[in-house]
Amino acid sequence: MKLDIELPPAPSAAGSYQLAKRHKDLVFLSGHGPIEGGNLITGKVGADLTLEQGVHAAHVTGLNLLATLKAEFDDLENVVSVLKLLGMVNVAPGFDQIPAVINGCSDLFVEVFGHKIGRHARSAVGMAELPFGMAVEIEAVVAVR
Amino acid sequence: MKLDIELPPAPSAAGSYQLAKRHKDLVFLSGHGPIEGGNLITGKVGADLTLEQGVHAAHVTGLNLLATLKAEFDDLENVVSVLKLLGMVNVAPGFDQIPAVINGCSDLFVEVFGHKIGRHARSAVGMAELPFGMAVEIEAVVAVR
Amino acid sequence: MKLDIELPPAPSAAGSYQLAKRHKDLVFLSGHGPIEGGNLITGKVGADLTLEQGVHAAHVTGLNLLATLKAEFDDLENVVSVLKLLGMVNVAPGFDQIPAVINGCSDLFVEVFGHKIGRHARSAVGMAELPFGMAVEIEAVVAVR
Repeated sequence: MKLDIELPPAPSAAGSYQLAKRHKDLVFLSGHGPIEGGNLITGKVGADLTLEQGVHAAHVTGLNLLATLKAEFDDLENVVSVLKLLGMVNVAPGFDQIPAVINGCSDLFVEVFGHKIGRHARSAVGMAELPFGMAVEIEAVVAVR
Repeated sequence: MKLDIELPPAPSAAGSYQLAKRHKDLVFLSGHGPIEGGNLITGKVGADLTLEQGVHAAHVTGLNLLATLKAEFDDLENVVSVLKLLGMVNVAPGFDQIPAVINGCSDLFVEVFGHKIGRHARSAVGMAELPFGMAVEIEAVVAVR
Repeated sequence: MKLDIELPPAPSAAGSYQLAKRHKDLVFLSGHGPIEGGNLITGKVGADLTLEQGVHAAHVTGLNLLATLKAEFDDLENVVSVLKLLGMVNVAPGFDQIPAVINGCSDLFVEVFGHKIGRHARSAVGMAELPFGMAVEIEAVVAVR
């Protein structure tokens, strides 16, 4: 576990919603994007971005999700289980190495929370377009203390 | 709060499913579309429809979701929290103002339920195709009394 | 009910995730694909595959979801309610008979579990690309004993 990982500033919502909403011990995290150094990583994976750049974008998106969790729940130690990710990749036509891209986020969560808490169910899919041309968008459901 | 809002007739399912399924206090609402005056608003936002027409389609989809909630739970007062939306826009290539479109539904929910209950987590994404060419499809998870 | 249905071997994950994660009585099932006789059914519905072949792919995906449930929870009798499906079809441009495709899975769940347990909320949408070119990907949320 690596709960002391250095995180970017928590992002802000891009519309009339909030980044996380809790009900009892379940937390629904909004779709987050790859904000790095204040800039959004944009482009279609398989054309504008390579597979490796896509993996990096998913890793960065994971850091943003963790930043929201830390901001909302004070401490990542309050996360009891990462239940489910929906990992959406902005794909060029014909790009289907989508699971490899989303591993950039999934691997981070296992590294940070350990296998038992961090390993999750997941879907990984290829989107026609994502907001503002972002390369990856990932939402999550987690359980908290 | 505006729980007495006038709603369209509750829609019917377009396949072998039901519009809502409850488990304890959680309700999963199926993907709903923009049915207005008995007709489905179709077309790709950014080509067949303008941004403004897309926002309207998302607003209308929100009214349909509310109509299902009211039909299932008798009274919108039984909604305790809108937890999560997945807002899917039928996009023309290159259209990425997706959050602005889905605000048409999110703003409605805040107007109807107030900020505390109505404001939610959300993902907004651009789809290659939606059923019957509908412009917007939105699903939701809500908590009820 | 047809809980003794013959199922394919449980699939394995295509990345850094697991096929199902449980929290209390909720189970999140990862996006599954149409593996039949050890091979993945690939192609875009509406071009490479007909509607009928798409329906079959969704049925096969449903069998894979059931195989995971049986492997994880020992017996399909432990499923108390199928709550929600997200059915994603790898579509050719202009193909919008998406609900008919996903009925291939929804009908199977009603056949296996009966109406009360098996009938669910659902979204059915058309994707730009799916992992490895698979024709259909379906994820689910179920409640278990």
